[in-house]
Amino acid sequence: MSMNFRILSIALALICLTQSTHAQTYSEAFQRYKDSDLHFEKDNPLFPTFNYKLVTGLGYDGDPKTDPLIQSKVKIYRDNPRARYLVRLAGNQQELQAAYHLRHAIDGFVENTTFRDVTSPIKIGDTYHAWYSKSWGEPAVGQERGSQEAWQEIKGQWKRIYSWDFVSIWHATSKDGYHWQEQGVAIEPGPKGSYDDRCVFTPDVLVSGGKYYLYYQVATSPHVYRDGPHKIAMAWADSPDGPWTKSDAPVLVPSEPGHFDSRKVHDPCLIVKGGKYYLYYKGDGDHSNRYQFGERFHIGWGVAIADRPEGPFVKSKLNPVVCGGHEVVIFPYKSGVAGLVRQGPELFSMQYAEDGLNFKLATHVTDVPFAGTFFRQGHFKDIDKHPAELPRWGLCHGSRLGSGEAFIMRYDITFPVVK
Amino acid sequence: MSMNFRILSIALALICLTQSTHAQTYSEAFQRYKDSDLHFEKDNPLFPTFNYKLVTGLGYDGDPKTDPLIQSKVKIYRDNPRARYLVRLAGNQQELQAAYHLRHAIDGFVENTTFRDVTSPIKIGDTYHAWYSKSWGEPAVGQERGSQEAWQEIKGQWKRIYSWDFVSIWHATSKDGYHWQEQGVAIEPGPKGSYDDRCVFTPDVLVSGGKYYLYYQVATSPHVYRDGPHKIAMAWADSPDGPWTKSDAPVLVPSEPGHFDSRKVHDPCLIVKGGKYYLYYKGDGDHSNRYQFGERFHIGWGVAIADRPEGPFVKSKLNPVVCGGHEVVIFPYKSGVAGLVRQGPELFSMQYAEDGLNFKLATHVTDVPFAGTFFRQGHFKDIDKHPAELPRWGLCHGSRLGSGEAFIMRYDITFPVVK
Repeated sequence: MSMNFRILSIALALICLTQSTHAQTYSEAFQRYKDSDLHFEKDNPLFPTFNYKLVTGLGYDGDPKTDPLIQSKVKIYRDNPRARYLVRLAGNQQELQAAYHLRHAIDGFVENTTFRDVTSPIKIGDTYHAWYSKSWGEPAVGQERGSQEAWQEIKGQWKRIYSWDFVSIWHATSKDGYHWQEQGVAIEPGPKGSYDDRCVFTPDVLVSGGKYYLYYQVATSPHVYRDGPHKIAMAWADSPDGPWTKSDAPVLVPSEPGHFDSRKVHDPCLIVKGGKYYLYYKGDGDHSNRYQFGERFHIGWGVAIADRPEGPFVKSKLNPVVCGGHEVVIFPYKSGVAGLVRQGPELFSMQYAEDGLNFKLATHVTDVPFAGTFFRQGHFKDIDKHPAELPRWGLCHGSRLGSGEAFIMRYDITFPVVK
Repeated sequence: MSMNFRILSIALALICLTQSTHAQTYSEAFQRYKDSDLHFEKDNPLFPTFNYKLVTGLGYDGDPKTDPLIQSKVKIYRDNPRARYLVRLAGNQQELQAAYHLRHAIDGFVENTTFRDVTSPIKIGDTYHAWYSKSWGEPAVGQERGSQEAWQEIKGQWKRIYSWDFVSIWHATSKDGYHWQEQGVAIEPGPKGSYDDRCVFTPDVLVSGGKYYLYYQVATSPHVYRDGPHKIAMAWADSPDGPWTKSDAPVLVPSEPGHFDSRKVHDPCLIVKGGKYYLYYKGDGDHSNRYQFGERFHIGWGVAIADRPEGPFVKSKLNPVVCGGHEVVIFPYKSGVAGLVRQGPELFSMQYAEDGLNFKLATHVTDVPFAGTFFRQGHFKDIDKHPAELPRWGLCHGSRLGSGEAFIMRYDITFPVVK
C-alpha cells in the first residue's frame, strides 16, 4: 500500500466517521414542514399550491386593511407561509384557506348578493376582464322551505330558491387583478318562454378570430330544486364591452336518459387544440336513475368538440372523460389539458390528458379552488401550435357562512421547481 | 425483398390497420371506473381500499338484516362495489362510507353510550380480543353549554363534557371478528387524586413475553374542554381476561412548553423493532402557543422508545415524526412502519418509515378510517426479524349524527395486486 493511498484511506475513514456522528436534527417529515414545503410532493413539478388573496369589487367591497376582524384572522396566514398549516386545521379541511376567514366576516360584503362562477380572467391591452354569475334579492330560500312556484311569477318580487337563482352574467375589469370595477350586466335571462328565461350563469370566455365568446349555463322556469334540464348557450361580441348577440338556440343540451349528462350540462370551459374547439362541461344525470354505459354513475366531466366557436359541438363518444370532479376546473398545459378533481373516487387529484380525452393521474393535490379558473397567458391560442405554460393565478369563489351568498377571490399558484 | 419478408410486411400492415380502426370505447378515466378500481393508483401496491362492515356488540346491537332503514341504505353499497362511488358523493366526503349510513340510523344502538378508540384486534387460540373506550351517562354536554365543574364532583350524577368523558376501558371477544361479546370492564379510572381519576381511554395492546400490556391515555379531574395534561399509562396482565395491574405512574408525559406535545400525549400504538418497543403517540401543544423547534406547529405524531414493555420510554429527538395526522393510525409492514394521515399539510397520504422515524410518501389515499387499527397477523413479533405482511382487516369507530355517540365498525382492506 503506497503512502498516498494510506493517507487517502485515513481521510475517507475520517470523513465517514464525521458523517456518522453528525446526528440528524429533524425527522424528514419535520424537515419538510420546516422548509415550508407544506406538502410532500415537492419532487412533482405539477403539485400546485394556491395562495388565496382578497380582491375588492366582486362581492367584497370592504377594505381589509381597516377591518379588524379580517385583519386579525388573515394576518397570520398572510405573513407566515407556514401558518397555512394552522389555518387548514382550524376549519373544515375542504374549505379554501382564505375563504375560511372571509366567510366568517360580517362587514364589507354586498348584502343579499352573490358573485360566483367566474370566467377565466383575460387581459386586453392593460386591462383585465372577467365575467361572473350575479344574483341578488331577498335571502335565498331552499325548495324545501316553501313553494317555489309562488315566487317565480313576478320577477320584481322574487325570492331565490338558492343563492344562484335569477342569475345574470356581469362584467368587471381591473388594472391589477386585485381591485375590480363592475361594468354592468353582459347577459340577462331572456323573455318568458325563451330557452334562458330564468338563469344565465357559470360562464367561461373564449377569444378567437378577433371576437369574444361567452359560453354559459341556461335554465328556464320553473326552476325546480337542483333539477334540469340545464343547457349551455353562447353569445358573441366584437368587444369585451359588448353588445352580446345570443345564439338562437343552446349549443349543448343534455343527452338521452341513460347517460351521465341526461339532466344537466353546465360549467363550460374552452380549450383550443389541433384547430378544434374543446368545450369541457360538467354533466349530471337523473338523480333517481343515474347510469352511463349501463354502469351506475354520478357526476362527471364531458367534452364536446367543434370546428368553429359557434359549433356545432359534438360530444365525444369517450365521455365522461373525468369520473367525479365538481365544477370544471381545467387549464391548458403544454399541448394537453390538466383538470383538478375534488369529488369522486379520484378526489384530490390533478389529472392530465395529452389528447384532451384520456386523463391520467398527474399529482395528488391537497386543495382544489371552488369553481377555479386560470389566467390564460396566451389567451386562447391553439395549444398544439403554442404549448401552454403553467398558470400563475386565477379566480374562484367562496361562500359566506349563514347566508350562503358567495364572493370572488383570487389565488396565486406556485409549482415546485424540481432540480 | 424475399417473398417471406413481403408477406410479413403485408401481415404487419394489416395488423396495424386493424388496430388503428379499432375505436377506443371508453375514456381511460371511465375504464378505471368500469373496472371498479375506484381509484387511479392501482399501480401502487400500497394503495388501500377499506370495505366497511357492520359488527354487533360494540355499540350497535341491532340486526342489520331486519332493520329496513339500514338495509335500504347499505344494500347498494354492500352489493355493488361500484356503489361506493355513489355513497362517497352522497355525503360528507371525509366521512367513512358505511358510517355514513349507520350514523343516520335510529334503531339498534346502545343509547347514551359511546364505544370508540379500539385497540388492534388480536387472536388468542380461536378467539379474537379487543379493548376499547366506553363512556355512558346522560347525553354529553359541551363545555360551552354550562359549568363542567358542577358535574364532575358526584360521579353518580355525572354529565359528560363530551361523549368521551368518564371513560373506562372495556374488553370484548369474538369468534369471527364480526359478532362481539362484551366481557366487562378491564381498566377503570383510579380513585380521586390518582393520575387517572377521570378517564382511561384510547388504548392499544401489546403481547410480549407471554404477558399482555394495555397502553392508554389518562386524564384527571377537572377535565377542562380539550385541555390537558393528558398522559399515557400502562397496565399488564398474564391473561387477556386480566386482572390488570396498573403502572405506578404514567409511562409517558407531555413535554415542556415549546414542544408540540406540551399539553397531551395520547392515542398510543406499539411496534416492536430491533429489540426495542416503539410507542407511537399523538402529541398536542398549548392551543394558544403552539411551537416545535421554534416553528409554529399543530398536531403531530411522536415516538418514544424503550428496551422493555414497562419502559422507561425515551422520546425520540426527531419528534414529531409525522406532521399532521389525527389519531395514530399505523401498522407494521416489512421491517418498517406505515401511517395513515388524514389532517395537516400531508393529508390523505400513507407514509412509510423504514427506520420507524423518517416517514416518506408511500401513496396518496382517499380514505383514512377514524382511529383505525389493524389485526396483527403475527401479533407483536420483532419486525426486523419477522417482516410484517400487509394488514387484511381492522377496527375503527364512527359517530352518530345528533348525539355524537360513537360505535365500532370493522373494515376489510384490499391492496392492488401489481403485475
